[in-house]
Amino acid sequence: MAEMAESAGKGSLEGVDLLVGMATTRAIRRYTDARVTDEQLQQIMFSATRAPTGSNRQPGRFVVLRDGDVATEAKQLIARSAQAFWAQKRAADGYDAGSGADENSPKARMARTMTAFVEGFASVPVVILPCLVRYREPTPSEGASIYPACQNLLLAARALGLGGVLTHWHGGVEDELRALLAIPDGAAIAATIALGHPAGAHGPVRRRPLAEVVFEGAWGASPPWAQDPPDARFTSAGPPK
Amino acid sequence: MAEMAESAGKGSLEGVDLLVGMATTRAIRRYTDARVTDEQLQQIMFSATRAPTGSNRQPGRFVVLRDGDVATEAKQLIARSAQAFWAQKRAADGYDAGSGADENSPKARMARTMTAFVEGFASVPVVILPCLVRYREPTPSEGASIYPACQNLLLAARALGLGGVLTHWHGGVEDELRALLAIPDGAAIAATIALGHPAGAHGPVRRRPLAEVVFEGAWGASPPWAQDPPDARFTSAGPPK
Repeated sequence: MAEMAESAGKGSLEGVDLLVGMATTRAIRRYTDARVTDEQLQQIMFSATRAPTGSNRQPGRFVVLRDGDVATEAKQLIARSAQAFWAQKRAADGYDAGSGADENSPKARMARTMTAFVEGFASVPVVILPCLVRYREPTPSEGASIYPACQNLLLAARALGLGGVLTHWHGGVEDELRALLAIPDGAAIAATIALGHPAGAHGPVRRRPLAEVVFEGAWGASPPWAQDPPDARFTSAGPPK
Repeated sequence: MAEMAESAGKGSLEGVDLLVGMATTRAIRRYTDARVTDEQLQQIMFSATRAPTGSNRQPGRFVVLRDGDVATEAKQLIARSAQAFWAQKRAADGYDAGSGADENSPKARMARTMTAFVEGFASVPVVILPCLVRYREPTPSEGASIYPACQNLLLAARALGLGGVLTHWHGGVEDELRALLAIPDGAAIAATIALGHPAGAHGPVRRRPLAEVVFEGAWGASPPWAQDPPDARFTSAGPPK
């Protein structure tokens, strides 16, 4: 497998199984102070750019923010936007109402994680802005040429023992961010991805039961094979109730 | 690792390394007649639905088309649309001009592959329509909650020895397809994914050099670490020249 390992740009790295990796990659929002190395970024970005794009046009560009004055200023800008977004979402989604009043509820725990995440966002080890160079009018389907790369990016981080999360927190400061980083008008910022060495345990990925979302032959027709494995963890959709 | 394997819903399946899998998953457009089994579809859809979505809302629904009258009719509809799209693209991108006149050129080979693909599309073993149930106005960033699942789907197929490709070929027959499959108005069809057992060899993934698309600190600033591994294969962007 030496040849295959080289094809992945991964040298002799200890491997994570592909199916296991997909089943155990979840949003990581708490990081240690450990530096993300050049070698790790190289591997992560190589994996990201292996993802497919329409007609192999490869419209993705990736602005990595790690050290230095400009990167720090960019992270501070995004932190401001993240804090405003979260304050709004916390109220709109009722994080402090109902079970949120119990500090041990999933809702209250998620609220604490989010608050710590946005307040410390300027110190996130690495922030990556995946951008899409547009060659036609904006459309909901253009994401097919950038979000597969974002998923590869997060899976590669998982393979290296890192973790991250995809957000849209550039949204509130996009003009300042574009000016600071010289992002041209023709390029859309598709996401703000935070990355680092995970602090604490990961916990399982929780999703809706497969039978609710997988159909065969027609909308709503759940086939007999759409069953979760016995140890799957479930959740209802959306913010904690 | 038995526990981890179970978490992936994969039983005792022989594994593919995560980084290797991402580096070697490419568009597969030629399939054998071999049936894709229930067990394979279960694993593929379980992996797909492990992908992240905004606020874990899980707006993705997946309509699988395999056997039976309705699935066959849907594939025939999409085949008609695919043939029209490809005829238009073939002319617009000049597939028969320049090097395309040489039947051994990459351009002529790609044209033959595409022609065979669209002409035989009604016989593709499995077609999956990933849909997105909208809860707000359409936006280019909504793809962040469906295309990561599409990438997991293709990676899971790779892990099982299958292959596929993401297209937008529903585009020309969307109204008929919605009526036939009872896809509700609030759900957008995000892609048409073809899947099957690969016929023939896969060949390497070809991309732009990393230095052209990965920046650090500012747009256009290629960092020293953005280097491809020695055996990476390159291509310019877009359809073959």
